[in-house]
Amino acid sequence: MKPSLWISKLVPAALLFGIASKSIAQEIGANPIASILQIQQYERAIHIMVMLLIGFGFLMVFVRKYGRSALTATFLLVSISLPLYLSIKSLGIFGTKPEIEQFILAEFSAASLLIAAGAILGRVRLYQYILLGLLFVPFYILNELIVIGDYFHFVGKVADTGGSIVIHAFGAFFGIAAALSLTSKQDIETPIESDATTDKYSVLGSMLLWVFWPSFCAALVPIEAIPHTVVNVFIALCGSTLATYLASVYLRGKVSIADIANAALAGGVAIGATCDYATHVQSMIIGIVAGSLSTFGFAVLQDKQQKFHKIIDTCGVSNLHGIPGIFGGLSAIVVVAGLDIGAQLKGIALTVGIALVSGFLGGKLISMFGKQTEIYADCAEFNDAE
Amino acid sequence: MKPSLWISKLVPAALLFGIASKSIAQEIGANPIASILQIQQYERAIHIMVMLLIGFGFLMVFVRKYGRSALTATFLLVSISLPLYLSIKSLGIFGTKPEIEQFILAEFSAASLLIAAGAILGRVRLYQYILLGLLFVPFYILNELIVIGDYFHFVGKVADTGGSIVIHAFGAFFGIAAALSLTSKQDIETPIESDATTDKYSVLGSMLLWVFWPSFCAALVPIEAIPHTVVNVFIALCGSTLATYLASVYLRGKVSIADIANAALAGGVAIGATCDYATHVQSMIIGIVAGSLSTFGFAVLQDKQQKFHKIIDTCGVSNLHGIPGIFGGLSAIVVVAGLDIGAQLKGIALTVGIALVSGFLGGKLISMFGKQTEIYADCAEFNDAE
Amino acid sequence: MKPSLWISKLVPAALLFGIASKSIAQEIGANPIASILQIQQYERAIHIMVMLLIGFGFLMVFVRKYGRSALTATFLLVSISLPLYLSIKSLGIFGTKPEIEQFILAEFSAASLLIAAGAILGRVRLYQYILLGLLFVPFYILNELIVIGDYFHFVGKVADTGGSIVIHAFGAFFGIAAALSLTSKQDIETPIESDATTDKYSVLGSMLLWVFWPSFCAALVPIEAIPHTVVNVFIALCGSTLATYLASVYLRGKVSIADIANAALAGGVAIGATCDYATHVQSMIIGIVAGSLSTFGFAVLQDKQQKFHKIIDTCGVSNLHGIPGIFGGLSAIVVVAGLDIGAQLKGIALTVGIALVSGFLGGKLISMFGKQTEIYADCAEFNDAE
Repeated sequence: MKPSLWISKLVPAALLFGIASKSIAQEIGANPIASILQIQQYERAIHIMVMLLIGFGFLMVFVRKYGRSALTATFLLVSISLPLYLSIKSLGIFGTKPEIEQFILAEFSAASLLIAAGAILGRVRLYQYILLGLLFVPFYILNELIVIGDYFHFVGKVADTGGSIVIHAFGAFFGIAAALSLTSKQDIETPIESDATTDKYSVLGSMLLWVFWPSFCAALVPIEAIPHTVVNVFIALCGSTLATYLASVYLRGKVSIADIANAALAGGVAIGATCDYATHVQSMIIGIVAGSLSTFGFAVLQDKQQKFHKIIDTCGVSNLHGIPGIFGGLSAIVVVAGLDIGAQLKGIALTVGIALVSGFLGGKLISMFGKQTEIYADCAEFNDAE
Repeated sequence: MKPSLWISKLVPAALLFGIASKSIAQEIGANPIASILQIQQYERAIHIMVMLLIGFGFLMVFVRKYGRSALTATFLLVSISLPLYLSIKSLGIFGTKPEIEQFILAEFSAASLLIAAGAILGRVRLYQYILLGLLFVPFYILNELIVIGDYFHFVGKVADTGGSIVIHAFGAFFGIAAALSLTSKQDIETPIESDATTDKYSVLGSMLLWVFWPSFCAALVPIEAIPHTVVNVFIALCGSTLATYLASVYLRGKVSIADIANAALAGGVAIGATCDYATHVQSMIIGIVAGSLSTFGFAVLQDKQQKFHKIIDTCGVSNLHGIPGIFGGLSAIVVVAGLDIGAQLKGIALTVGIALVSGFLGGKLISMFGKQTEIYADCAEFNDAE
Repeated sequence: MKPSLWISKLVPAALLFGIASKSIAQEIGANPIASILQIQQYERAIHIMVMLLIGFGFLMVFVRKYGRSALTATFLLVSISLPLYLSIKSLGIFGTKPEIEQFILAEFSAASLLIAAGAILGRVRLYQYILLGLLFVPFYILNELIVIGDYFHFVGKVADTGGSIVIHAFGAFFGIAAALSLTSKQDIETPIESDATTDKYSVLGSMLLWVFWPSFCAALVPIEAIPHTVVNVFIALCGSTLATYLASVYLRGKVSIADIANAALAGGVAIGATCDYATHVQSMIIGIVAGSLSTFGFAVLQDKQQKFHKIIDTCGVSNLHGIPGIFGGLSAIVVVAGLDIGAQLKGIALTVGIALVSGFLGGKLISMFGKQTEIYADCAEFNDAE
C-alpha cells in the first residue's frame, strides 16, 4: 500500500477513535491450548495495566502541589492512548494480530507515553496531556515500525524484547525534547516540593512497578522462555535496588527516598533488551550497573541538566528511562550471541533521533495551546478543597 | 425439595456459617486442562478479591472522619458474605458447582453488598455492617435465582454477564432503600469532609477497580470469549474516563477529583451486561455514555436527591452503580442480537423491585439495632489516636 | 559430598552473589502443558512478590517516625535474600529444581526474613538489614533442609504446605531472639507512635497480604488440589477477620485498627500447615481460633512481653506469626489423617530451637556492627525533608 493511501486512512481513524473490532482476527475456536495461552497473556496484560495506571500514577504523586493532576493525567493518558493505538493498528495496514497481543502492544505505547509525560509533569494543563497522547502515539508507532518491525528494511534485527530502547529510551527522549519548549525561567527557580505522605505514595507506585515488571518484559515472550526471563528481571531489579542504596549513601552521604523509589527500577529498564538472553549472573551485573548509573543521574546530573540545559525533567525520566534504556540496548552487544551489532546501534540511534525530533515538534505544538505563566498547582484545575 | 424443607435447612446453616465442603463437587482428577482452566478462574477470583477488599475499601476512604470505619467495614462485609453465600449454596438446593466457580459467585454477592453499604457508610456502627451482610445475602441469592437462574421460569434469558443488573443495580437500589431509614436531618445538614490525602487513597481504590475490572466481567465467561471480553471492558473504561473528565469540566467549571475517582468506573458498570457481545466501537460508546451519565449524577443529581428525597447516599452509589447499571442492562436491547427483550426488561424491573423492597426492610431492621444520634466519627468505635 | 567441601563452595558463592544459571535445569521443550503449568506457578510467584514487597512493606509503615526506613528496609531485605537463596541453592548440593519453583522457595525465605525483621524494626540501621539478610538465609535453608527436606533423616514427614512452621514460626522466633540483643532501656520507655495516615498505609499492606495469601499457600501445591486449597485459605482469613473484630471489641472496649490490620491475617498464618487437607469447616474454625489468639496477643500479651522479658517486638511478630504459626502446626494433628505426629512435633520443636539459637547469634553479631544510642528516626539516615 502506498504511504499516501494509508495516511489518508490513518488520519480520520485517529480522529474518530474508530476501533474496527472486526479487523482484529479471533481464530481460537476449538483449541483449548491456544485459548489458555491467550488467557495467560491477558494475565500479563492486567499486570502491565497495574504498572501503567497505578505504578506510574503514584510514582508521580511525589510532588506535593499537583498530585491530583498527576493521577488524573495518568488516567487520561492511558485512556487516550490505548484506543488510539488500537484504532491505528486496526486499519490493518501493518497486518493484524490476535486481540490480546495487539492490546499488549497498545499498553507498551501507553507506557512510553507515560514516561514522556513524566518529563513535563506540572507544567501543562490536563487537556494538554490528551493532546500529548494524540501526538505521541503516531510517532511511537512509526518508530516501532522502523526499529522493531523493520518495515523499511534498513535496520535489521534489533534485540529489545522488553523495550529498553523503543519504549523506555524513546519515551524519555521524547519527553526531554518536549520539555525544551515547556520550561520557563520561573520553573527553574522554584524547587519541587514533596512531603512524607507523598513520598510514601511514590514508593507505593515504585513497588508496584518493581513487582509486576517481569510480566512487562515477558508479556510476548514464547512460553518456554518465560520462566528464565522473569527470574532474570527479578534478579536485575534486586541488583539495581542494592546498588541504588549503596550509591545513594556514597554520593549524598544520606539515603534519598526519591533515589530508592526511582533508581531501584533501573534494573528493569536496562534488562529489557536482553531479558530472554542473559544469564542470571549477567542480569545481576546489568542491574547493578543500571542502578548505579541511574542514582548517579539523580544525585549528580539532574542539577547540572537544570542549570546548563535550562530544562526541567520533573520526574527525572532521563535518569530512570533514558540512560538505563540506552545502557540496556548497548548491553546486548556483550550479552546476545550472534547479535547484528550494526542493527542494534542503528536501532538505538534512530530511536533517539526520532524521539528527539518528534518530541521537540510535540512540545512546540503543545505550548501553542497554552503555556503556564504561574507555577502550576492543582487548585488551578481542581475545585476540591486542598 | 419442598420450600418448607429447604428453609428449615437454610436457616440454621446460615446461622452457623457451616460450610459443608463435601457437597462441593471436585471432579478434576487426571485431566490437566480442566485443572488449568480452574486455576485460571482462580487467578480471576484473586483479581476480584483485590477489587472487593482494596478497591472498594479505599474508594470509600475519601471521607476524612471515618476512614478507619470504612476499611474495617469492608473487611467485615467481605468476611461475613463469602462464607454465608457459600454456606447457603452448599446446601445443594440449587445444584452444585465446581469450588472456584461457586467462590466467584460468592465474590459477586460480596461486591453487590459493598455497593449497598456505600450508600449508608458513616451512619451505622460496625456490628450493623455484619447485620447488613446477614440480611443482604439471602435476598441477593433470591434475586440471582429469579433473574439469572430463572428458577421460577417467569423471566426468561437475561443478558447480564458482568452483572450490570443483578450486581450493580441490585446493590445500589438496596442501599438507597436502606438509607431511607438511616438518614437523619442532622446528616443532611453536615457536609462530608475530605482532604488531599484521603482523596488520593480514593483514587488508589478507583484505579485498582479500573485495572482488575475485566477479570470481574470475564470471570465466568467461556475461555474462547475471554480475550474479546476483556478488551471490550478496557475500552469501555477508557471511554468513561475520558467522558468523565470532559463532563466534569463542562458541568462544574473545574474538575472534581471525586468525579474522576468514581464516574471513570461507570464504563465498567455499564459494559457488564453486554461485555461478551459488544463490538469494540459499541463498548467505546457505552463507556462514553455511562461516564457522562454518572458524572451528571454526581455533579447535578446528588444535591437534588439530598434535598428533595431526604436521603444521603454517602458514596453516590446511585450515580455510579444505579444509573449506569440500568443503562447497561438496557443497552443490551441494541447490542445483543436475538435478545429476548421482554425478559431483559422484566429482569431489570424485578431486580429493582426486589432490591427496593428488601433494602427498605433491611434498613428498618438495621435501624432497630441502633440509630446514630450524633454525626458519626471513627473515634466513637476506635481507640487509636487520630 | 562432604560438609567441609560444600562449605568451601557455599561461602564464596554467598559472598559473591554468584548465581550460576546453568545449574538451574530447564527441561520444558515441546510440551506446552509443562510450560503452561510453570507460567501458572509464575503468576503465583508474582502474587507472593506483591505480598513481600508491598504487603509487608506497607504493613510496617504504621510507625510514624521511620516509615521510610521500613519501606527501604523491605526493598533491601527482598533484594539481598532472593539472589542469596538462589546462589546457595544453585550450588546443586541439594539437587536442582525448575527455575520458577526454586524462585518461589527463595520468596518463602524472603517472607520469613521479613517477619524476623519486623521484630527489630526501628532499632537498626539500613546496612544492618543487609547483614541480617546475609545471616538469616543460610540458617533458614538449614532449617528447611532438616525439617522439610528431612535431609538428615531424623524428622520424618512434616505437614507444612503453606509454611506455618518453617516460614512464619521460624521467622518470628528468629526475630524475637535477635531482639534480645537489640532492645535498649530507652526503647522500652518510648512508645511507638502512629497517626491516621500511617494507619491506613498499614491497612493497605494488610489487605494486600490478605488478598494474595491463597497464592502463597497454594504456590507449590499439585494442580488438582489448588482450588480446594485457595478456598480454604480465604475461609480461614474470613474467620480470623471476624474473630479479630469481636475479640478486639471484647478485650479493649473499642476496636484497635492495628488489631484489624494484623490479627485479621492470623488465619492465613495458621491454615498454612493444613491448607490442602482441611475441610472448609475446619478452615473456618482454624481461622477463628487463630484470629482470637492473635488479638489476645496484641491486646494482652504484648505489654507483658515488653515489661517482663525486656524486649520490644516492634510489629508484634510473635502475636501474628509466632503463636498462630505454632497453633497451625499443631492443628495438623487433628486435621491431617495419617499424620506422623512425632515428626510433626519434632519439626515444630526443631524449628523453634534453630530459630532461637540462630536468631540470638544473629542479633549479637548485628549489634556488634552498631547499636543505636538514641531513639531511631528516619532523619538519621534520610536526607529528604520530613
